[in-house]
Amino acid sequence: MKSGRSLRDLLFGRPLSTDDDEKERIGPAAGIGVLGLDALASAAYGPEALLTVLLPLGVGGLRYLVPLTAVIVVVLVIVALSYRQTIEAYPDGGGAFTVSKHNLGTNWSLVAAAALCVDYVLNTAVAISAGVGALVSAVPVLLPHTLPLCLAVLVLLAFVNLRGIRATGLVFMLPTYLFLGTLLSVMVIGLGRIFTDGPAPVAAVGAGTSQVGTTATVWLLARAFANGCTAMTGVEAISNGTPIFRSPSVVGARRTLAAIVIALVTLLLGIALLARRYGITATHPGEVGYESILSQLTAATVGRGAFYYITMGSIVAVLACSANTSFADFPRVCRMLGGDRFLPEPFVHRGRRLSFSHGIIVLTLLAAILLVAFGGITDSLIPLFAVGALSAFTVSQLGMVAHWRKQSGPRAMRGRMLNGLGAIATGVTLVVVLASKLGEGAWISVALVAGMCVLFKNVRAHYDFVSRATATEASLEVGPAQPPIAVVPMRRWDAVALKGMRFAIGLADEVIAVQVLTGDREVDDLTDKWPALAVEPSRAEGRPAPKLVVLRSEYRQLYAPLLDFVRQLEHDHPHRPITVVVSELVEPRWYHHLLHNHTASMMKALLLYRGGPQTIIINTPFHLRDWRPERSELTRRNGAPRLTGWWRRRFHRAR
Amino acid sequence: MKSGRSLRDLLFGRPLSTDDDEKERIGPAAGIGVLGLDALASAAYGPEALLTVLLPLGVGGLRYLVPLTAVIVVVLVIVALSYRQTIEAYPDGGGAFTVSKHNLGTNWSLVAAAALCVDYVLNTAVAISAGVGALVSAVPVLLPHTLPLCLAVLVLLAFVNLRGIRATGLVFMLPTYLFLGTLLSVMVIGLGRIFTDGPAPVAAVGAGTSQVGTTATVWLLARAFANGCTAMTGVEAISNGTPIFRSPSVVGARRTLAAIVIALVTLLLGIALLARRYGITATHPGEVGYESILSQLTAATVGRGAFYYITMGSIVAVLACSANTSFADFPRVCRMLGGDRFLPEPFVHRGRRLSFSHGIIVLTLLAAILLVAFGGITDSLIPLFAVGALSAFTVSQLGMVAHWRKQSGPRAMRGRMLNGLGAIATGVTLVVVLASKLGEGAWISVALVAGMCVLFKNVRAHYDFVSRATATEASLEVGPAQPPIAVVPMRRWDAVALKGMRFAIGLADEVIAVQVLTGDREVDDLTDKWPALAVEPSRAEGRPAPKLVVLRSEYRQLYAPLLDFVRQLEHDHPHRPITVVVSELVEPRWYHHLLHNHTASMMKALLLYRGGPQTIIINTPFHLRDWRPERSELTRRNGAPRLTGWWRRRFHRAR
Repeated sequence: MKSGRSLRDLLFGRPLSTDDDEKERIGPAAGIGVLGLDALASAAYGPEALLTVLLPLGVGGLRYLVPLTAVIVVVLVIVALSYRQTIEAYPDGGGAFTVSKHNLGTNWSLVAAAALCVDYVLNTAVAISAGVGALVSAVPVLLPHTLPLCLAVLVLLAFVNLRGIRATGLVFMLPTYLFLGTLLSVMVIGLGRIFTDGPAPVAAVGAGTSQVGTTATVWLLARAFANGCTAMTGVEAISNGTPIFRSPSVVGARRTLAAIVIALVTLLLGIALLARRYGITATHPGEVGYESILSQLTAATVGRGAFYYITMGSIVAVLACSANTSFADFPRVCRMLGGDRFLPEPFVHRGRRLSFSHGIIVLTLLAAILLVAFGGITDSLIPLFAVGALSAFTVSQLGMVAHWRKQSGPRAMRGRMLNGLGAIATGVTLVVVLASKLGEGAWISVALVAGMCVLFKNVRAHYDFVSRATATEASLEVGPAQPPIAVVPMRRWDAVALKGMRFAIGLADEVIAVQVLTGDREVDDLTDKWPALAVEPSRAEGRPAPKLVVLRSEYRQLYAPLLDFVRQLEHDHPHRPITVVVSELVEPRWYHHLLHNHTASMMKALLLYRGGPQTIIINTPFHLRDWRPERSELTRRNGAPRLTGWWRRRFHRAR
Repeated sequence: MKSGRSLRDLLFGRPLSTDDDEKERIGPAAGIGVLGLDALASAAYGPEALLTVLLPLGVGGLRYLVPLTAVIVVVLVIVALSYRQTIEAYPDGGGAFTVSKHNLGTNWSLVAAAALCVDYVLNTAVAISAGVGALVSAVPVLLPHTLPLCLAVLVLLAFVNLRGIRATGLVFMLPTYLFLGTLLSVMVIGLGRIFTDGPAPVAAVGAGTSQVGTTATVWLLARAFANGCTAMTGVEAISNGTPIFRSPSVVGARRTLAAIVIALVTLLLGIALLARRYGITATHPGEVGYESILSQLTAATVGRGAFYYITMGSIVAVLACSANTSFADFPRVCRMLGGDRFLPEPFVHRGRRLSFSHGIIVLTLLAAILLVAFGGITDSLIPLFAVGALSAFTVSQLGMVAHWRKQSGPRAMRGRMLNGLGAIATGVTLVVVLASKLGEGAWISVALVAGMCVLFKNVRAHYDFVSRATATEASLEVGPAQPPIAVVPMRRWDAVALKGMRFAIGLADEVIAVQVLTGDREVDDLTDKWPALAVEPSRAEGRPAPKLVVLRSEYRQLYAPLLDFVRQLEHDHPHRPITVVVSELVEPRWYHHLLHNHTASMMKALLLYRGGPQTIIINTPFHLRDWRPERSELTRRNGAPRLTGWWRRRFHRAR
């Protein structure tokens, strides 16, 4: 690689060779930062979302907190055990897409991929917005700058991810471990007090404070459960990203998964128990006096000292950074879709730092659109959120069940049982979530997933069509055919046009120079000079003389008459290639291009897209940088090898 | 012309043939609408600007109004008479640019052109802003929408002007004549009362009300005069635009000029006399109780009835529309600069409706930038304003003096005297305006004019360089030279690549297919298949076999290895043309292009801009639209004429 691109290197790091791939891989410690943030950050909003639904039950609702959390934890553990199976079965990255593709067929895999894509885009916007929201509620002077802050965080994340996986892991390790360390300390201190002081202070929680009937309570509990399930999003990330772990990657991925789930379960249970002990309920978000569960809980446990603020700071950081899981996985899902040609090919290519740059950029753009559309406050997107993740979970587990059914033995039996349990758990959860949130906007997720599946299918169909149209095993037999006609559009007789003419003469016996007169500017009609300029020299050398056609454009159009002329030639000579030699002045500096007409570029594009199958475009560049005033016959240098000699030599050799 | 582009025709009108030019010309009646609005609208702000300066003198300041207006009117008449000479001497459009170019040299003409450009851009922004400002002060509910309204008016003006001159004249005739009719009625009624009632009511205007010393008064009067001179801007427009009048265009232009100046003088004198009679002084703009002079005056004369509102409405319309003069003239100045290659050539071309579209679009963009930058309120730009116009006036008059000095006889003497007087009058005015406004921002105008002159000179120098570099009288002698090498980049062996290969084989004996393996996606290395695909068929037909070069790209770059390969070839064969055959799939629908890599486009661009002087780019399109599944050998259709036969025929013929 060349040196000298120092700015780009400084920003994005030096390019990585494809062989550097192994060095870019990471261990479990960094893996938690890259893939685990989404799952861990769930602890910050899952219980909160659950308790918010229980608000109508008053303080009495708290009695349902521990049982509901226990159910969620059970489902979570089942899901985690299922994904442990998936990691082992698909060490190359067994996302829901891969698993369902191999075991359930294309349609299911597209549903899973679409669901994940929707989930990841939403997660990016919601996580950044949540983090920035926590920040601006702590520092209200920043409130008017919510949207710019969100976009800044988004760009920062995109930027870090474009630098590659290792960079990401290292950057995110600090907030992750600060978050885990501080919150787990809060849990230990708080739970320690329960054992030393006994479960005394919860006098307020008794029966009878609810003003809600039994059926309504069941419905409320179902909705609380559905909301709490947002705590499970992000667990799938590790199985999608298995290949980013150092070899043996299965071991690394499993350890990371275990660490994340244990941490998450501890946090969820700890929060539930402490909230119940201190009688902490949700407050209405957006109203005066709102305070998050974790804030109340931390304050109740350790007081509002320095430790409180460090804990809150780490929560803000982890919320904002949890969008990073989407940045790690969205490009991988796109890559798999691209690999199967359900998405355009650039998603398959890795950038200079081995990250899938196109996916990162697309995710950034989509999230930016969401953030701008919602002004940086994405609360209304949360109902759309868990649907994608849970759909992908369910499809993935069903795929694993099918996977194990193909095999036999006790391991397959155990796998089948575990994944079956996972499928039931996530499937039921999905139904509950869908039922309770469909009206709140979850239908948008469903519609988006359906729309994306249609898109994927259409893209693939088009690529298949192109493949069929272009695939050939034909070899290079050629047989007899027709000589080409060379058309040389020119404005005036100058060195640029001359270079084109010389190439055309080498190429074809029949050369037609075309001059379009638009009448706008005094351009000399070449008719009078043509014999001296072109005809006589050609005759003197025993070559056929090039013709000149002057077209007058009544409507001052330069391109239409030329295109019509080429089409007419194609029509008149249906078996001969029509080569159009577009000579072009190339300026050494880009801004000098502003001074020119771009006639050549327009002409090339029109001939390419609107020419017939016989049209072939030849572009002869005349480089101004090569011109030196001291060279008397500049065309000798720039017209480069005088081409016609080749024709003549061929002629001589043949003779 | 084809039909079917009905939307574009509907928006911009059917295209006009160059021969339609004469039909697009206009008479004096429409000429006032096209070229006169700027001058006439001056009546709405000139006296106001003058009186605002006199505010410190109190009502006593009014006594200076009539004398100052008289001086301005004298200068105006001198300027008009001078321009009458210019119209006759330069019937092809004697703007300040042309006159000074012919008589004073290039540098002066560039100063004049730059001054006019600055003036026109400022005028566009200020006029629209003034019109919208008057509208929103009448309808305060629109106040928050000032900027969008300004931009809407701007776009509307641009749009009307793109439709051509005739359209413009017709659209603007109504507001112009309404403005003239209502305001002249006010004058007649008001002045009629002076004669019938005597000059009675002005009791307030006496000596001694001034609290300002004599020296300060002189300075105030100079500044009031300078401000009042904004009333003269726009008079030059007719001489710039002479060719838009129906033949004999000199007569049409002179009549229009006379009509405009008479109307303007009548308005200015009428306003001065009526203001003095009714004791109307300026009020502080932007403060509560602000009311424009014309509003006070109309109300005083005819009361606040329907007629008052019609008059005010026409003033608003004319203010907004007076930007139209800039739209008519700015593109013409650019066209002249472009004709002498001080600006890029597109400014010279006329659009489908014979208007100079590029100039219109550039003016729109520049004015839009000003409007957005100042939030639609451009009061602070007014001091920058008159400098450009007065500079152009002075240079133009000086040029006319030089013009007459070349001739003799009584007509030349009279012309010399008139234009000399004009030069002195505008020169002195310019000095007064500069002196009194330099600190207020007029220095920005001066700096802009200087900067633009430097730009013009640089653009011209670059074009001259390009002309020298490309001009050639060399004819088409060719002499002996070297055979080309054909390089065919290919990704895989398909019909698209095959078409390119076939053309390459026809073109050159030495054909090198280049496959770049980036390792990102499973693309088959062609090495094994190459003998069967290409080598054996070539040998069977007695042709030299094409070579295959497989390049492995460590950094997953597609283009750099290819470019390096081509450069190496150029280096190894310094006298042979290197033709790179870029085969390209052309999709029938534009959105399908989103699905592709644009590898071919990138490759073409890189080879064009970064290839050496020997590189020639050949683009063989493979049109998907031409493919039909039923054609068994699709390459026969799409690869079109099998090219190599041409080579072979040439070979046979030569033998």
